[in-house]
Amino acid sequence: VESIRTFRTFCPERNTKNEIVIECSSSQEIEEALNSAHLSRHFWENKSIQLRVDFLLAIRGQLIQDQSEIQYFYCLESGLSVSRFEVEFTRTLFQLEHFANFLQTNFSRITAQTEKQDYNFPTLYKHLCPIGPVVVLGSSNFPLAYSTIGGDSVAAIAAGCPVIVKAHPFHALTSIKVASAVKKVAEKLELPNGVFTHLLDDGYSLATQLVTDERVKGVGFTGSIQGGRAIFDLANRRLSPIPVFAEMGSSNPVVINFTEWKESKKYAELLAHSITNDAGQFCTKPGLIFLPNSNGGSEFIEQLIHQISNCSNFFMLHPSILANFEKNKEIKLQTDKVQLVVEKSSELSMQGNITLATCDARTFLNHENLQEEVFGPFALIIRYEDDLELEKCLSKLHGQLTGTILTDLKSDQIKSKDWFQMLKDKVGRLILNGVPTGVSVHLAMNHGGPYPATTDSRFTAVGASSIYRFLKNITFQNW
Amino acid sequence: VESIRTFRTFCPERNTKNEIVIECSSSQEIEEALNSAHLSRHFWENKSIQLRVDFLLAIRGQLIQDQSEIQYFYCLESGLSVSRFEVEFTRTLFQLEHFANFLQTNFSRITAQTEKQDYNFPTLYKHLCPIGPVVVLGSSNFPLAYSTIGGDSVAAIAAGCPVIVKAHPFHALTSIKVASAVKKVAEKLELPNGVFTHLLDDGYSLATQLVTDERVKGVGFTGSIQGGRAIFDLANRRLSPIPVFAEMGSSNPVVINFTEWKESKKYAELLAHSITNDAGQFCTKPGLIFLPNSNGGSEFIEQLIHQISNCSNFFMLHPSILANFEKNKEIKLQTDKVQLVVEKSSELSMQGNITLATCDARTFLNHENLQEEVFGPFALIIRYEDDLELEKCLSKLHGQLTGTILTDLKSDQIKSKDWFQMLKDKVGRLILNGVPTGVSVHLAMNHGGPYPATTDSRFTAVGASSIYRFLKNITFQNW
Repeated sequence: VESIRTFRTFCPERNTKNEIVIECSSSQEIEEALNSAHLSRHFWENKSIQLRVDFLLAIRGQLIQDQSEIQYFYCLESGLSVSRFEVEFTRTLFQLEHFANFLQTNFSRITAQTEKQDYNFPTLYKHLCPIGPVVVLGSSNFPLAYSTIGGDSVAAIAAGCPVIVKAHPFHALTSIKVASAVKKVAEKLELPNGVFTHLLDDGYSLATQLVTDERVKGVGFTGSIQGGRAIFDLANRRLSPIPVFAEMGSSNPVVINFTEWKESKKYAELLAHSITNDAGQFCTKPGLIFLPNSNGGSEFIEQLIHQISNCSNFFMLHPSILANFEKNKEIKLQTDKVQLVVEKSSELSMQGNITLATCDARTFLNHENLQEEVFGPFALIIRYEDDLELEKCLSKLHGQLTGTILTDLKSDQIKSKDWFQMLKDKVGRLILNGVPTGVSVHLAMNHGGPYPATTDSRFTAVGASSIYRFLKNITFQNW
Repeated sequence: VESIRTFRTFCPERNTKNEIVIECSSSQEIEEALNSAHLSRHFWENKSIQLRVDFLLAIRGQLIQDQSEIQYFYCLESGLSVSRFEVEFTRTLFQLEHFANFLQTNFSRITAQTEKQDYNFPTLYKHLCPIGPVVVLGSSNFPLAYSTIGGDSVAAIAAGCPVIVKAHPFHALTSIKVASAVKKVAEKLELPNGVFTHLLDDGYSLATQLVTDERVKGVGFTGSIQGGRAIFDLANRRLSPIPVFAEMGSSNPVVINFTEWKESKKYAELLAHSITNDAGQFCTKPGLIFLPNSNGGSEFIEQLIHQISNCSNFFMLHPSILANFEKNKEIKLQTDKVQLVVEKSSELSMQGNITLATCDARTFLNHENLQEEVFGPFALIIRYEDDLELEKCLSKLHGQLTGTILTDLKSDQIKSKDWFQMLKDKVGRLILNGVPTGVSVHLAMNHGGPYPATTDSRFTAVGASSIYRFLKNITFQNW
């Protein structure tokens, strides 16, 4: 007899474990999920695209019906507020619509073919086919939009791939609720069981098993560099390696380069909010701010300190995330010549203190670990002397999801700067006079970037073109 | 002082080493190539697409000027005939045109953008950018079309990536000649040195160094599974992994499923030619033939034996390729219950014997190594009893570049067969009533397939869409 492990989720607001006991999936459930996904791998391919559209839109409808229950578990497990729930829930519904709309208007299974006048060629047409069963390992910080029926799952379904979700253990109850909505719809539409399955685990062993199973043909992951790299390595060491799209860490550098400082207040306010909102627990939270070592720069820091004082502290997602936040923040603060700028503390034990620190460019260049992501409400301000020093700093950066430029220079002036090229090399999205948080779901969005932002800078995790992560080509000749 | 290794290429026709002594690149030359490629990584990006077109077409012109010298070395080093040279040379010129034409008509750097009416979104446009310096490790069997300025190099240039070619040691003199044509053009157009560099080595150490250098951002490889997997593993174990597109081994299964056998002779002739032409040294050579265990099937074998007797023996590319051919062929022939069908021998020592062998489906299912590629003029005929046995065999296949069906069934009848789905799962191209050799350069071509045919079934190595292997996304927000 197999002994089934159990676990409970945590309520940050009450600072205690939730009562409901969750069972990890049994070996039999895992085998059934893998087998049914494998057996249903041709299902979508042999049906009309419209059936995928119907499935996505019916899921949307079911989520709306189940909204209040989902909201209950979401807030219970994540420490995120009701208003944040509403934003993320709306985003999740919009994603389902966005992909349904894409399938109906922009997507074609046949992407190229020979024409009658191509005398020198055999008759060819090139067909996009699903790669096969996809394992989705969702994120802790978006229990809906990057999780159970979030971007990766929706993209895989739209591509025609069976989806096996391993619930994130921090919001397992939310995940169970959302998965049951999806399954209800699959049953109504009489889809085979394998098109969407949901598994539970409190550790890493299930993810390892799924990623290394020969029946699994692709992986979507959102989380830490350490976790993403482990999954990537497992997938690449298989007898038959499979594509892994892992969206991992990013410090989202912001370059401030004003000649005049007229709009200091506006940008300090935007930036303070972007660093602190929802406890800075966003993959695009700005974590590195490159600021001129000038009077204007110093005044900007004063503005930032003032704006931070107006910002709220928020609950962090989980005690282990809070502990990592404190640990990683301390590493920066303990680095020689790094100074604390401001700390806004909270009396609630699950709320991390909002913290800004600063150092000069030379210190940043001497300590590679200063560029590493601190997940939470923390940013490091690096003071640079001139364009050359800025260029040196940016050339040392690892790959990033985003880079932001706050400036009153004109577009052509910016693009002529060497540091612009350095920044552009490192990022998946380049924002002018804005903030990196708030990732719009649109075909023109790129949520990706060079390693370690993701494992493959040729793809995006947001927007309907993320479907191409899960599609392969077959050319039909003479058919 | 560094001691420079030297080597000489081999002339299969004369069965002797060529006289010209070739020096391996020095450490300094290697460093200069890497450094200049790195320094020129933004060059194409900041120029018009037309300049890439000009470069490709000027290379085409220069190759035509240098044709006779290239031909001399090609035949001297490869054992391939003048008529084969002409076909491959024409293909190489056509590829340059094809990509130039694609850049002018089908390619857009901006792939998506927000419209004025997208009120809910910031201004976004999504831009395709070169991934950076690409290392090309060309194939032994296509000294022109898949080598120095073959598919991978042309795709990388079209994408705007600096290219570092490591010459294949079997045709290093041809490679030097072709590279000097490319460099001549680059100088005329006043392009920076780094846009195309050419290095020489007689072993694996240079490839290892290039693939693991942080300045290199992508790799194109054509060759064996062992070699491709080694490159893939090196690239994935880097601190920052990079995309490798390796096109590797394939046995290119052919399913014969006639109800009547009216066209036996025609297909036996086609197939015999496809197995034996240029000594079967093609990545799409049909190596596994699934034939019904019926009278018609037995008669088809007689036809094949007859056709093979009309086929010519050809020189193999290199003694080590001949040795591998003999070794791998013997492994099959030594397997219990595998029988020799026909062997057409040659008196010339660098020509491998054309060989067909046969076994029943059960034997094939019991010996996994029977499906492994034999590079050279060899095919294994597997006799199957019925659809179910065929399905079992196909379900055991590894990933393949191609799958071929020779049948008098109608398209709908074929697609309703379970074995059709099995075959489709495993291949990058599915040919009906034709042969897999002869890979047309066309947008609708897919030269790819599930592992181990390639390392990524989402991309192709032939046709202009192979450019997407070397392009990443950046979204510009608010610009």
